[in-house]
Amino acid sequence: MQIFLSRHNLDGFLFVGDSICDSDMYYLTHFLSGDRFAFLAQEKTTLLVSSMETGRALKESTADECLSTSQYRIMEKLKRGDKPEEAYCLVLVEFLQGHGIRRLGVPFRFPAGIYQPLLQDFEVLVLESPASRCREIKRQEELDAIACAQRACERAMRQAVLLIGSSKPRGELLYRDGQPLTSEKVRAAIDVSLLEDGCEAMDTIVAGGPQAAAPHARGTGPLAANAPIVIDIFPRSKSSRYFADMTRTVLKGEAAPEVKDIYEAVRLAQAAGLLAIRAGVSGKEVHSRVSQVFLDLGYPEREGRGFTHSTGHGVGLDVHEKPSLSETGEVLQVNHVVTVEPGLYYPEMGGVRLEDLVVVKEKGSENLTHFERQLVL
Amino acid sequence: MQIFLSRHNLDGFLFVGDSICDSDMYYLTHFLSGDRFAFLAQEKTTLLVSSMETGRALKESTADECLSTSQYRIMEKLKRGDKPEEAYCLVLVEFLQGHGIRRLGVPFRFPAGIYQPLLQDFEVLVLESPASRCREIKRQEELDAIACAQRACERAMRQAVLLIGSSKPRGELLYRDGQPLTSEKVRAAIDVSLLEDGCEAMDTIVAGGPQAAAPHARGTGPLAANAPIVIDIFPRSKSSRYFADMTRTVLKGEAAPEVKDIYEAVRLAQAAGLLAIRAGVSGKEVHSRVSQVFLDLGYPEREGRGFTHSTGHGVGLDVHEKPSLSETGEVLQVNHVVTVEPGLYYPEMGGVRLEDLVVVKEKGSENLTHFERQLVL
Repeated sequence: MQIFLSRHNLDGFLFVGDSICDSDMYYLTHFLSGDRFAFLAQEKTTLLVSSMETGRALKESTADECLSTSQYRIMEKLKRGDKPEEAYCLVLVEFLQGHGIRRLGVPFRFPAGIYQPLLQDFEVLVLESPASRCREIKRQEELDAIACAQRACERAMRQAVLLIGSSKPRGELLYRDGQPLTSEKVRAAIDVSLLEDGCEAMDTIVAGGPQAAAPHARGTGPLAANAPIVIDIFPRSKSSRYFADMTRTVLKGEAAPEVKDIYEAVRLAQAAGLLAIRAGVSGKEVHSRVSQVFLDLGYPEREGRGFTHSTGHGVGLDVHEKPSLSETGEVLQVNHVVTVEPGLYYPEMGGVRLEDLVVVKEKGSENLTHFERQLVL
Repeated sequence: MQIFLSRHNLDGFLFVGDSICDSDMYYLTHFLSGDRFAFLAQEKTTLLVSSMETGRALKESTADECLSTSQYRIMEKLKRGDKPEEAYCLVLVEFLQGHGIRRLGVPFRFPAGIYQPLLQDFEVLVLESPASRCREIKRQEELDAIACAQRACERAMRQAVLLIGSSKPRGELLYRDGQPLTSEKVRAAIDVSLLEDGCEAMDTIVAGGPQAAAPHARGTGPLAANAPIVIDIFPRSKSSRYFADMTRTVLKGEAAPEVKDIYEAVRLAQAAGLLAIRAGVSGKEVHSRVSQVFLDLGYPEREGRGFTHSTGHGVGLDVHEKPSLSETGEVLQVNHVVTVEPGLYYPEMGGVRLEDLVVVKEKGSENLTHFERQLVL
């Protein structure tokens, strides 16, 4: 942070937001709050929270100093009729002046409604957050937290696969205990397993048949027999707040030859991607290797059909973070954590996707995913 | 929205963000996405999403039109070397120009890193989001969704109360099945119940003894006997995305007279608050009635001791939203949904808080909370 501040000749870098949505703020403070607070990084670091949160901030955060908005008389300002946003900005101005700020950096996502009034009293530069680059390269404790979430993710995947595997194809649908097996039931089994492991998952995908053709569709209703079912689980550990991410595609019943071919193509493309990963190679290069496999096997991307997304993304305190394995992917570095998740999508058939989570190493990668790839259950 | 646009003489109002963190965007689009997208409100409404999301956006969102960043050649821009943020801003400029925008409104939380470059091509006004005022007054379907989440909340509270009620005080701790009963175990019972009801809860509070003196401390470790335990549950329905919110304080064992007095004071303060609520009364007035009860009963707020927070807040797609019942609380209107949650906090003792969720009505309020208030179990 010191180097960053002096490179840009800044007196400080200011974040304002909540640390549930803004992972940079959680990363830098370890103070988890759904309510807005401010964090000023200088040689020392300072939190500015509401008076109600001061005790918790002192105890839980890693900041050097915790101050309260009441120390800047926010109630007086509100009582004399300032609107809440105006009063908060006045508090921030006093807070920043009290910390010797003249030239200030703020991140891209800094609220425009605060940025604009601060311009009256400070020189404000909007810069890429210094935390986002740090966050890309994981420390050992972060790698451990991600691996731990990945173990929970795989136990949940096992429950899903067992449930689908124990169902019976009857006509066009899968049945279990005399009832159609639904996306919702499989998702519930996943959710219970994750909860037992102290994880939460917002938007687990269990999408069968044509539903799976939209890569982010969650899936709903009865699951089709003889059709691929995409299961994409990305849980967050409630204690560490780190994510894991994996996808498998399974089918119960008879797989049509073209579905088997598509699955095999995705498997080969993923293998090529995994093989290409090592420090010094760009995400762009990895993505192009994966795309080339699909092209070679006769699956070009065309008008929203085929391989319609990028190869992968970083995973950490956010489920989608840098670096990306895409047309614009940067050079990979040791201890980047990325997904490798090629897929093929056709509206009439649905989709097939396979996703592993790996740690980039000097001479290759360490695959955190230990779950088999098996289409037909 | 039309009235808002013409009042400020705007050609459109632009949101950029993800609709998991920005509830205004979910409210206005019904498109749930953890990845960033743009939403332009004019006479017609338009979503701008990545090409991968176009199909889902067309299907799930309520926008009149869904466009993709690939229609604005984002890949070309990236391939020629523009940084991702620059390329995205160029896409936005083309998108806005194509929609006849010259004078544009953006909300307070709009990212400064996009606001700043847009100033080169447009007149940009940072305004309070037009959605935030609409969101305060709930439609019937929103009231139903909140009530439904509240039912789930109370079933979870019942599990927690049963668990604590069935524990045995032994020395200074509570025991169950020969093991100390912990905050974590009670929270797990709450989480399982919520999951069964299709809800998720990020930060359920189960805090006993001195831990409860910080109103937002989650609580950890063995629960103390003979001491108040604050249980604050604020689940979100996964399907509707609406929150509920409630708090009860319970104690297993012997309650000291001063704890009983504090509980009774909180109960009376809450009753006064509930009684004061009706359309036309300000949140400030309600808060002052509650504070007055504490003052009258000999519990002044002083140096972080006593009633250290406001009386309540709105609940909807966010767990904390407008209006507030506080020193700066606005006038309440029919179908506002607010919490009434006085509490008293003393570091050496802990805390007592009682929280109900009510709908503001013409001549009073409808209490959505049907759970008894009982300190000693």
